[in-house]
Amino acid sequence: MNDSDLEEVRSWAREAGAIARQYFNNVVGQRKADRSWVTEADLRIERMLVERISARYPQHGIIGEELTHHEIGREFLWALDPLDGTGAFVAGLPLWGVSLGLLRQGLPYLGVIYLPLLNDCYWCDIAGAAFLNEHPISVIEPREWESEDWIAVPSNIHRRFAIEFAGKVRSLGCIAASLCYVARGNAVGALISRAAIWDIAAGMAILSAAGGGAIGLSGQALDTTTMLGGGGLPEPILIGAPTHVQALRAVIQLR
Amino acid sequence: MNDSDLEEVRSWAREAGAIARQYFNNVVGQRKADRSWVTEADLRIERMLVERISARYPQHGIIGEELTHHEIGREFLWALDPLDGTGAFVAGLPLWGVSLGLLRQGLPYLGVIYLPLLNDCYWCDIAGAAFLNEHPISVIEPREWESEDWIAVPSNIHRRFAIEFAGKVRSLGCIAASLCYVARGNAVGALISRAAIWDIAAGMAILSAAGGGAIGLSGQALDTTTMLGGGGLPEPILIGAPTHVQALRAVIQLR
Repeated sequence: MNDSDLEEVRSWAREAGAIARQYFNNVVGQRKADRSWVTEADLRIERMLVERISARYPQHGIIGEELTHHEIGREFLWALDPLDGTGAFVAGLPLWGVSLGLLRQGLPYLGVIYLPLLNDCYWCDIAGAAFLNEHPISVIEPREWESEDWIAVPSNIHRRFAIEFAGKVRSLGCIAASLCYVARGNAVGALISRAAIWDIAAGMAILSAAGGGAIGLSGQALDTTTMLGGGGLPEPILIGAPTHVQALRAVIQLR
Repeated sequence: MNDSDLEEVRSWAREAGAIARQYFNNVVGQRKADRSWVTEADLRIERMLVERISARYPQHGIIGEELTHHEIGREFLWALDPLDGTGAFVAGLPLWGVSLGLLRQGLPYLGVIYLPLLNDCYWCDIAGAAFLNEHPISVIEPREWESEDWIAVPSNIHRRFAIEFAGKVRSLGCIAASLCYVARGNAVGALISRAAIWDIAAGMAILSAAGGGAIGLSGQALDTTTMLGGGGLPEPILIGAPTHVQALRAVIQLR
């Protein structure tokens, strides 16, 4: 896979984002989320992405949030979330996006995440560099935390976690976006409570290229090879630069 | 003030948003927020808004986040936040906006909130109706909460509050936007921990027109007339439809 292949994958993500935008905010005035309507968007985007990938890479496997489950034992496996942050999307919030990850032997290898309303595309290349659009990005380097520092947290933080972090918490409602804001060096880290492989495959590849990593709350390393069947994280994980992740482990506990 | 006056105020908010967009994401690649840079955007927008308002309504007072403090004893007092959600803006997050409130005798009377990246304009008219762009909006009516329901919370929720709410929490990083998502009937309610009059004047007018209200965590009514000197909320407040606000009071406590 070379630079122009990657450019093609990014164009698929933009194409997917354009479809999602057609559905966004078409429920203005409705009080209650119409989830069936969102499923239509999700399905349509996933179908399009699966078509593109299988035409171009017939030898690769594909797993997607919306039921795609094709040859997951192959060396290269695409993990797709056609619309990450569905709840935010339905609520008319701006942070949701398309997450296109490629695993190699079950490990995050390449990723593209596109956030349509920001027109921000996060990605990494084979050489191991991470980008936001055309700008190189990297995680926040080791340093003391300040009161303006923030971490991304899940929307069940109030019930599930005790957090003594001295900065701010933000619940963005989109796992892929949370990973991107850590990778670009804005958030110190992120706590991810529940996720499937399609939620994190792209983000973990980008994060890793940006100098970050993940660790379970218990201290165990994250092993994505156990998630290829569609099962979730075995435990909540912390992501960020290695030193920040270790420091966050000391201030975050399950309740 | 009539419909075309209100249309003019909305055009000022859009003009302000266009200025903010010029500054947005011009710090890509920087690891640390350059707060002085943001102040330049804030100041420039506030200056523009003060010019527009004082030319059109010379008999009105104006109070703004960026040091404007003009004739606050007048019957009509504008309360401006040129860039609400500065932290989110600096972090490259999409939820930030322009908040233009008009108080009458110290009480929220009219408001316009513009969220540039969504191109969403929330406002209310003299007849007491609330709108998102041209669509009427209203708060969520009394009903049982579901697991997908959400409330907007402040970024210090992890340190300051104990919350037993059965749904989700989201920390959006923009008070004006939090009020709008309650007013449009997406969020059940919002908890606001710290705010000045310019953060809430517009949002409270819109929320009220959408059928919502505010109450202090202690149960005391919110009295904005005590905030005109620039002081903050005397205590955290809950906003939403009256029944939801009362129910939220039962599940949210200061730690």
